[in-house]
Amino acid sequence: MSRWEPNGRGRLEQAALELYVERGYEQTTVAEIAKRAGLTERTFFRHFADKREVLFGGAEALQELLVSRLAEAPASAAPIDAVAAALDPLGAHFRALREPARLRQSVIAANTELQERELIKLASLAAALAGALRGRGVGEPAASLAAEAGVAVFRVAFETWIGGNGERDLSEIARESLAELRSVTAGT
Amino acid sequence: MSRWEPNGRGRLEQAALELYVERGYEQTTVAEIAKRAGLTERTFFRHFADKREVLFGGAEALQELLVSRLAEAPASAAPIDAVAAALDPLGAHFRALREPARLRQSVIAANTELQERELIKLASLAAALAGALRGRGVGEPAASLAAEAGVAVFRVAFETWIGGNGERDLSEIARESLAELRSVTAGT
Repeated sequence: MSRWEPNGRGRLEQAALELYVERGYEQTTVAEIAKRAGLTERTFFRHFADKREVLFGGAEALQELLVSRLAEAPASAAPIDAVAAALDPLGAHFRALREPARLRQSVIAANTELQERELIKLASLAAALAGALRGRGVGEPAASLAAEAGVAVFRVAFETWIGGNGERDLSEIARESLAELRSVTAGT
Repeated sequence: MSRWEPNGRGRLEQAALELYVERGYEQTTVAEIAKRAGLTERTFFRHFADKREVLFGGAEALQELLVSRLAEAPASAAPIDAVAAALDPLGAHFRALREPARLRQSVIAANTELQERELIKLASLAAALAGALRGRGVGEPAASLAAEAGVAVFRVAFETWIGGNGERDLSEIARESLAELRSVTAGT
């Protein structure tokens, strides 16, 4: 069947986002998402476990990518710099996706269940990055703290980027946020 | 009725924790919790919205306490130090509660739904602390970063404390974790 459904996954994601914005997340059914995408409910459930997961489709692949990038950072890099280097290319990844990312954040912000899912994905990312740091020989609690701090920096930068006018690059904002964290933790 | 139910809330919390450890969170019903506590289901629902909330009963009061402590920190304190000062008395608060805290963490760790609830409570705490920092004149993103970093430090310290042998004080571990974060973010 798949040759009749080019990019079915992407179409479902886009249809879901549109409907969540138009009608609200809770009011939207899987049947409506599938219909908007021109696909069947069965196809939806081949791609996503439920209507919540359709907003988090890329999370696992993204996490794997970031962890492998962290493993590739120079051996001499300090833990927080290795985390920052791993997260940096996200700026380029999201560059053309600011509007869908902004819409997605607005849907998530309006629903506790979605906020919880977002938070557990971020916690999972931080844990995976901490594991990758331990694999580089970083001890605990330094590995967990560097990973948590790196993810917090990125989250704050992402919100700034989403809330701004789009003129500044996400990577640039993230680098500034890291500098700000350094200043904040230095107690200045 | 309340004079027949001394500390009903605490008895329900203890009964729930015991049952979640013995039988698992998902296998335990509100009826069983109420019975173990010697109370009725109706009393349970007067205190808690659902069997998930019974594990998070103190979160709001704790958050208010920490926010008011942050407001009381010396005006000269740097943001991260004000956050650390606000969180520091948690060590004394939890000192006699290490075993129930350890059991509670083991129940939460075994269930995604509970992990999500825990994460949103911590995110809410970080947001409240960031708001209190803004009230002290700290700008963004410094306020959010200091609050997120402070909560991350405390979380990591809490896990270390729970996982240890209980000889070291939580506050002491938290102070060490903050020193470790300073070192990690300094890139050393």
